[in-house]
Amino acid sequence: MATDGHRDLFADWSATLADLSATGALLGWDRETGMPRGGAEARARQMGTLSALHHRELVRADAGEAIAALAEGDLDADTAAMVAWARRERDRATQVPEELVRELSEARSRAVSVWLDARPRDDDAAYLDGLRPVVDLTRRYAEAVRGDAAELSDALLDDYEPGATAGELEPLLDELAAGVRPLVEPATAASPPPLPEAIWPADAQVALAREVGAMIGFDLERGAIARSAHPFTTSIGAGDVRFTTRVDEADPVSNIRAVLHEAGHALYEQGLPERLAGTFAHDAPSLGAHESQSLFWENHVGRTDGFWRSLEPTLRALFPEAMGTVGIDRLARTSRRVQPSLIRVEADEVTYNLHIVLRFRLELALVRGDLPLDELPGAFDDGMEELLGLRPPRPGDGVMQDIHWPQGLIGYFPTYSLGHLYAAQLAETAAREAGPLSDLAAEGSFAPILDFLRRAVHSRARLVRTDELMRDANGAGLATAPFIEHLRRQYLREP
Amino acid sequence: MATDGHRDLFADWSATLADLSATGALLGWDRETGMPRGGAEARARQMGTLSALHHRELVRADAGEAIAALAEGDLDADTAAMVAWARRERDRATQVPEELVRELSEARSRAVSVWLDARPRDDDAAYLDGLRPVVDLTRRYAEAVRGDAAELSDALLDDYEPGATAGELEPLLDELAAGVRPLVEPATAASPPPLPEAIWPADAQVALAREVGAMIGFDLERGAIARSAHPFTTSIGAGDVRFTTRVDEADPVSNIRAVLHEAGHALYEQGLPERLAGTFAHDAPSLGAHESQSLFWENHVGRTDGFWRSLEPTLRALFPEAMGTVGIDRLARTSRRVQPSLIRVEADEVTYNLHIVLRFRLELALVRGDLPLDELPGAFDDGMEELLGLRPPRPGDGVMQDIHWPQGLIGYFPTYSLGHLYAAQLAETAAREAGPLSDLAAEGSFAPILDFLRRAVHSRARLVRTDELMRDANGAGLATAPFIEHLRRQYLREP
Repeated sequence: MATDGHRDLFADWSATLADLSATGALLGWDRETGMPRGGAEARARQMGTLSALHHRELVRADAGEAIAALAEGDLDADTAAMVAWARRERDRATQVPEELVRELSEARSRAVSVWLDARPRDDDAAYLDGLRPVVDLTRRYAEAVRGDAAELSDALLDDYEPGATAGELEPLLDELAAGVRPLVEPATAASPPPLPEAIWPADAQVALAREVGAMIGFDLERGAIARSAHPFTTSIGAGDVRFTTRVDEADPVSNIRAVLHEAGHALYEQGLPERLAGTFAHDAPSLGAHESQSLFWENHVGRTDGFWRSLEPTLRALFPEAMGTVGIDRLARTSRRVQPSLIRVEADEVTYNLHIVLRFRLELALVRGDLPLDELPGAFDDGMEELLGLRPPRPGDGVMQDIHWPQGLIGYFPTYSLGHLYAAQLAETAAREAGPLSDLAAEGSFAPILDFLRRAVHSRARLVRTDELMRDANGAGLATAPFIEHLRRQYLREP
Repeated sequence: MATDGHRDLFADWSATLADLSATGALLGWDRETGMPRGGAEARARQMGTLSALHHRELVRADAGEAIAALAEGDLDADTAAMVAWARRERDRATQVPEELVRELSEARSRAVSVWLDARPRDDDAAYLDGLRPVVDLTRRYAEAVRGDAAELSDALLDDYEPGATAGELEPLLDELAAGVRPLVEPATAASPPPLPEAIWPADAQVALAREVGAMIGFDLERGAIARSAHPFTTSIGAGDVRFTTRVDEADPVSNIRAVLHEAGHALYEQGLPERLAGTFAHDAPSLGAHESQSLFWENHVGRTDGFWRSLEPTLRALFPEAMGTVGIDRLARTSRRVQPSLIRVEADEVTYNLHIVLRFRLELALVRGDLPLDELPGAFDDGMEELLGLRPPRPGDGVMQDIHWPQGLIGYFPTYSLGHLYAAQLAETAAREAGPLSDLAAEGSFAPILDFLRRAVHSRARLVRTDELMRDANGAGLATAPFIEHLRRQYLREP
């Protein structure tokens, strides 16, 4: 039976872990936004120390006893979610032998170093040598946490998208690819050429990032925005959510896309209920759910004519010169440019999921033992040719383009596609409940859109799992049709 | 006998503590320079969690065993210093009962809150109510760590200035006050009026801070500069030392003084030997030693005519308008303005130590039981009148002006005066070895000055105690005469 002692210990332990995570997040934020070069070595060690202390705290035996005692009792919905997520994370941490944790961490570090060195040299043999122990140890990790999962990959998927299984995802992503592929050619043909040359000064783009963030509801009193090489969002405790954007003086659209994407993540974090702060329930239930929010704002709001119209006065004020040569319609159309390309991170909304489908198929085959690692580069190139009609001319732009597999992120890629599918379903529901998103954006009415997301998604945090969260929000289960229909409307102007 | 196990444990434990300190420093840096308002509550908890984990790590029993085993062996100078400082800090942490640590921490938080609220209302009764438990508990703390110290105050002084005793400091600071007091009137009379009105734009002052820092040798690849309400310096690991400055658009001198002061601290941190990083020896041996470096640059370089002459081109480039009305000689003279005032943090170099002597006398009397706390405000006002000839018109500008006592910093103030005395002795030695500091500064030759400080002070880190460090550097023990002679030269233009 749970005592007050159990409850106090559980609350303190949860809050301590949240503090350690937030502190680790600040170390990461500062590394990308403020740290001088000379700090790199000490920073790596500091982040390692914080992770080790987090792990040590997570696996504390008395916390396990408190969880077990609490789980036996009659719990309100909030506490039930906190206890269930805590048990899940602690169990994962205790099921993996320490020796394996250490080996995996070392193999990942080594694989990333090798990747950094081998990619510019197109040395796929070195890349595969670095990757091999990561794949082997990740399979051993999956065995350790497998439980009663139907296959090994399910254990890996579960780390990023709790509840997802390869058995369900495989046909879903095949259907997604089949739906997308016929649209690529007509969408490409309907695309505008690149923007005419103009200078969009960096300082004004930083100011623009703040304007766009504030415009859609990001609270700058409870967050901050900075520049970094690669945009990201991080939460440094409730009340302090930050994101970065990239700035390219030749291209304001890239900055605005990044801001909308990261602000989507950040609005989710700012919308999590304060009463859950410092507990295991104060988070999204999955990466797919989180990505649904970034992609919602980036793709379903940020590529509409209405959004660009409402941004026009801000752009004219900040970029009087460039806006003298580039009209707002041109910017809006540029935001919807489609062009099959080799590099996933540069892909447009139409072709992006084809990159994901390829990676998901390959990692599934690797984990199932259906694809020998040596054959991965060739299989990658064949898949690119089949799905996107492009054959990478060199491995650095092929299988070696992503850092994720060397980092040990296997089972992570499909959360991007889930994000696209969930975002399209949520956008349909939002439009039904609040009105056409482009029209709302044109009027500067972003609040009804955010209100819908707050109510349907953010406020529910981890109180339910992703499938239930999305079914409640949309009145329907996960499907590809809303996304495909959205692409047809947005890129082929079908009604 | 020490084993490899002991050595490894000691090294890992030291590095973990260094990582936790650095991470805590980043939490503090970010709070003052980047954190949004909404982050305040979570940040306070995060800093508390990091302190608690630091304490828990510090008192680990196996670390105590490793220290004891190592101390028995034959150690090289570096390791001997690491072990001695580790034992000292761990012993202090284990000698204080946990209950007392908690009570003291709570009393300090409460006293600071009360102070924040009571100071603007001049409510000295409330202030004293908040301070009383801090003084009582600090005396209990001193009892706990006293060891064989001659009096309680020695145990407190030892936290900030290891080796210092009240018995030595009392006559020294009396002598200092006696030497300073006759100089105040003539130095005030020789002072220029305030600067004529001009605007020194904030952005240009930020650029100026970087120029001044780089000019005297601060390495921006291994550090950073930002703005904050109150200037401070912090070390976020070897290779990452940061400081802040304040910017007042009516007064560039205040910014430059702050930069020189903080850069002095930061140069010390950047000059600590890399081989000691992550150990207990990678620090200054005392706060007085640290302050000697900030005051060296602020007072012995930054108030010379030569320094201002070498800065003139930079000032003309950054502030073309203001420099059109204010000449460089005027700025140099303004940097040497003397004016007795009520507020310590605004005091000039001549009167500053009189504020310190007053506080030292009062805290000594409090700890010795010679002054009832109720009589503190009156004693403060009497002391101000005696030492500075000014009587505070309200307690908010009298005894309540400092945050330090509510924070529990009792025994801390005298380190400022020690810093002044050490700085003057080091400046004499530097001039003897490298040439007159004003002449070097006029030529932009800051490297010989920094080289001297690197060799005499920075490179020795904590390998010796402060008294030995300074005796080695200056060939003489601590004395007040060099400081008094410096004041006569700098403010009365005596040869």
